[in-house]
Amino acid sequence: MHHIRAAYDRIAAADRPEIWIHLRPRAEVEAEAAAVDPGLPLAGRLFAVKGNIDVAGLPTTAGCPSYAYRPDRDAPVVARLRAAGAVVVGTTNLDQFATGLVGTRSPYGAVRNALAPDRISGGSSSGSAVAVALGMADFALGTDTAGSGRVPAAFNGIVGLKPTYGAVPTQGVVPACASLDCVTVFARTLPEAERALAHMVTDAGRPPSRSPGPWRVAVPGAEGLGELDPGWAEAYEAAAGRLAGAGALLRPLDPSPFLEAAGMLYEGAFVAERYTAVGEFVDKGAPDLDPTVAAIIAGARDLPAHRLYADRTRLAALRARALDSLGDADALLLPTTPGHPTLAEVAADPLGSNARLGRFTNSTNLFGLAAVAVPAGTVGGLPFGVMLIGPAHTEDRLARIATLLTEPPARLAVVGAHLTGQPLNPQLLALGGRYVDTTTTAAEYRLHALATVPPKPGLVHVPDGTGAPVEAEIWELPAAALGALVAALPRPMAIGSVSLADGTSVPGFLCEPEATSDARDITRYGGWRAYIASL
Amino acid sequence: MHHIRAAYDRIAAADRPEIWIHLRPRAEVEAEAAAVDPGLPLAGRLFAVKGNIDVAGLPTTAGCPSYAYRPDRDAPVVARLRAAGAVVVGTTNLDQFATGLVGTRSPYGAVRNALAPDRISGGSSSGSAVAVALGMADFALGTDTAGSGRVPAAFNGIVGLKPTYGAVPTQGVVPACASLDCVTVFARTLPEAERALAHMVTDAGRPPSRSPGPWRVAVPGAEGLGELDPGWAEAYEAAAGRLAGAGALLRPLDPSPFLEAAGMLYEGAFVAERYTAVGEFVDKGAPDLDPTVAAIIAGARDLPAHRLYADRTRLAALRARALDSLGDADALLLPTTPGHPTLAEVAADPLGSNARLGRFTNSTNLFGLAAVAVPAGTVGGLPFGVMLIGPAHTEDRLARIATLLTEPPARLAVVGAHLTGQPLNPQLLALGGRYVDTTTTAAEYRLHALATVPPKPGLVHVPDGTGAPVEAEIWELPAAALGALVAALPRPMAIGSVSLADGTSVPGFLCEPEATSDARDITRYGGWRAYIASL
Repeated sequence: MHHIRAAYDRIAAADRPEIWIHLRPRAEVEAEAAAVDPGLPLAGRLFAVKGNIDVAGLPTTAGCPSYAYRPDRDAPVVARLRAAGAVVVGTTNLDQFATGLVGTRSPYGAVRNALAPDRISGGSSSGSAVAVALGMADFALGTDTAGSGRVPAAFNGIVGLKPTYGAVPTQGVVPACASLDCVTVFARTLPEAERALAHMVTDAGRPPSRSPGPWRVAVPGAEGLGELDPGWAEAYEAAAGRLAGAGALLRPLDPSPFLEAAGMLYEGAFVAERYTAVGEFVDKGAPDLDPTVAAIIAGARDLPAHRLYADRTRLAALRARALDSLGDADALLLPTTPGHPTLAEVAADPLGSNARLGRFTNSTNLFGLAAVAVPAGTVGGLPFGVMLIGPAHTEDRLARIATLLTEPPARLAVVGAHLTGQPLNPQLLALGGRYVDTTTTAAEYRLHALATVPPKPGLVHVPDGTGAPVEAEIWELPAAALGALVAALPRPMAIGSVSLADGTSVPGFLCEPEATSDARDITRYGGWRAYIASL
Repeated sequence: MHHIRAAYDRIAAADRPEIWIHLRPRAEVEAEAAAVDPGLPLAGRLFAVKGNIDVAGLPTTAGCPSYAYRPDRDAPVVARLRAAGAVVVGTTNLDQFATGLVGTRSPYGAVRNALAPDRISGGSSSGSAVAVALGMADFALGTDTAGSGRVPAAFNGIVGLKPTYGAVPTQGVVPACASLDCVTVFARTLPEAERALAHMVTDAGRPPSRSPGPWRVAVPGAEGLGELDPGWAEAYEAAAGRLAGAGALLRPLDPSPFLEAAGMLYEGAFVAERYTAVGEFVDKGAPDLDPTVAAIIAGARDLPAHRLYADRTRLAALRARALDSLGDADALLLPTTPGHPTLAEVAADPLGSNARLGRFTNSTNLFGLAAVAVPAGTVGGLPFGVMLIGPAHTEDRLARIATLLTEPPARLAVVGAHLTGQPLNPQLLALGGRYVDTTTTAAEYRLHALATVPPKPGLVHVPDGTGAPVEAEIWELPAAALGALVAALPRPMAIGSVSLADGTSVPGFLCEPEATSDARDITRYGGWRAYIASL
């Protein structure tokens, strides 16, 4: 219960009432949490829910009080998270009808940025992102049509996972553009977001196949991205550099089909789908309609259907170009937005500022792609974020690549079947591993040829003066990947600390002692590769 | 060249100038045919091309002279057929811009029915269907959005194959509704149509898997189909009866989602796609515009995009209901149309008569299904046709089922591994086979246990007085399926004529003589099943 009290203390201390549309009383949340089976995978986790997603017992407003209805059941995605043990804190503010990327278009108030209250939170999932950033919830649900699950992640320095369209059920969600809407998740760390997403997904689809090897990331030059806020091009290039430094293979890409398609989301006929969703309500007129949102939706009433068909044809051609340019890249790296405006700037130019924000995010759902937005440092003291965009159903893969930006890599010493060119080396490549160096262990080891399939050596540390140096390769891989490798280790292999010739120690492959009892001592060859060559 | 002369003689004798928009001179066709490699699979075949499909050297009119353009290359589907050796006779008349199911909406004249010139040909692929029916071409290309590749097949007593959307390329085809249009093929026989289609398809997709067994055909009761022309309900039920008699398993189905969706094709917002295709041209006004077609297309200009989104949602729900009701059925049997109007009836009510014709065909492409239309007898001396509609990429399977209506089945005597319950029996079921009877051969055979995998018997005819009767099952299967079985027969098996106890003979399994030299004579068991049981 300490966790809940701490969250409510932060809510009280922050004085950010605009974050919440309906905050549940702490006692109610505590009572519900107390009844959760502590063995459930998300037991103890608190989550906030964007105000356009049904939570039984709370009104669904979509940011418009006069539109509100009281759902008699949770949206399936909420029900799934609750069934896994997570507890709802409340519903959060949003750009009305999820129409906007700014977070200011709401009668519940403009949501201020978590770190710089004079700047926008980003939207439309504004309250959810800021609640997570300020520690009021462990994770939060958003939705994403134009970028609403990613833009506020970037502005508030958190992670936003936007899964493939259809992977997470959207029943019980007030539609923005029903054929594009995705439910997303925000968290302060990637593992927290991934853990929640695992319980949200009902159709994980099948990721495209991929041969092992370093991650392939398409990186458009900053000059092709249009104008960015000062310092943002450099921050973007630094993120690309970090990926390269972590072993990803960068390749150039012309982003123009992505940028052209982005313009079609609001400028073309696709916006008519918003009228299909709530147009009749908007046409009746209500005092709590946001004037910008109402104008956008009412303006979509007369868009002709023949233009929609033409736009679909044009979009299909742009999508073909975009996918063709991606080729077999695992991901496209882009800044999440071109810049971060202040509340005053958005108030002065509500449409123009919003359109600019969607430059990199708008095309993702039109193209049917998956994306993850992660923090990538700061510019001028404010969060800077990048997106990795990839083919449908590659959200897990995108998260693995994003980990290169969010976590320091682990090192691993390999001495046998995982060496470059040896049979198990593809495991390391598939885990995102990167070759760093070839060296030897300290002169404290003996190497044995084990009776395993495939043949492996067993490295054993021995008493002073009885050992020798053994050839070793040093690999770098994401910490989670090292964990995965350890989790799948077959007997008699082990991973422990290995002393290297330079006096440092890194995790490395060892073996259980009994395995060497009937094994041949091959230390004199100096390493596994030399032994193999002698056979 | 006799074939070409005969076709041109029929063209001249028929006095049906309205069939053709551009007929190539006979000498030109003969010269092209003379240059075709006679080893090509379609060498010697003549085909007609609907006037909305590009043929290099002929204008593409789409039934509107003022719209015409001269393509500098064949549409890919035409090019593929030509590369396979087929030769184009000319381009054929159609309902202008492929907008209609009647065949009367054309400045080139109303196309009269091949068999009853006071009745409509059906459309929009009117000229192509009548050209085939009258023997002016071996096959012809049509297109199908609402039923244009099937309705005229039914009215003229020929076969129309409508493949899955996307299976045949539509580049070089004037679009009607680009997201629905399919290129189709007409022929007088199913094998001719299938042979042509095999060269048209570029993306055959993957048919849904199916466990072996009799064909499963969903058959709505005639009372659920709305009013039909006199005698048509009985003809439809007779077709269902023939399928059942040939071994298909019939099951009921509520056709209402199919019929509801059909109404949406012209009444809803989907018709706006026709405006996208040619609306700007129609809006300019041209004296050779068909007034009914022009009114339909111009009337689609102001349909709002938000309604299109709503229609798509409604359609998706109807499609889900339709596919759910189909379940694992291989096909849905429907009359191709509810009736066959006269030219005068259509002139009196151009819109109403046309709408009625699409009752059963309109939903097929909206649902993304495949279909084959075949003749199924006559009513009042005029052709009556039915459709088999099935899941995407099942066109081959639908043709197999349709064969039960178009060809008398073949019989086959099996004495070993193909007997009911034996390992190869599923082959017969998968080929559409049906168990008829258990009997014995005449007392003129000996049976041997061969050393094959799986174990099989060898049936050998022997001289008078040295043989005995051997248990045999009689199966019925489509003639083409018997051919397929023979083509795949492994040594030492053979199929020859087998004399039965009742004095008749049927094709049946025999074996090569050398196979029995070291095989055990098991005649005394009376049959393979008794022998197996004794082991």
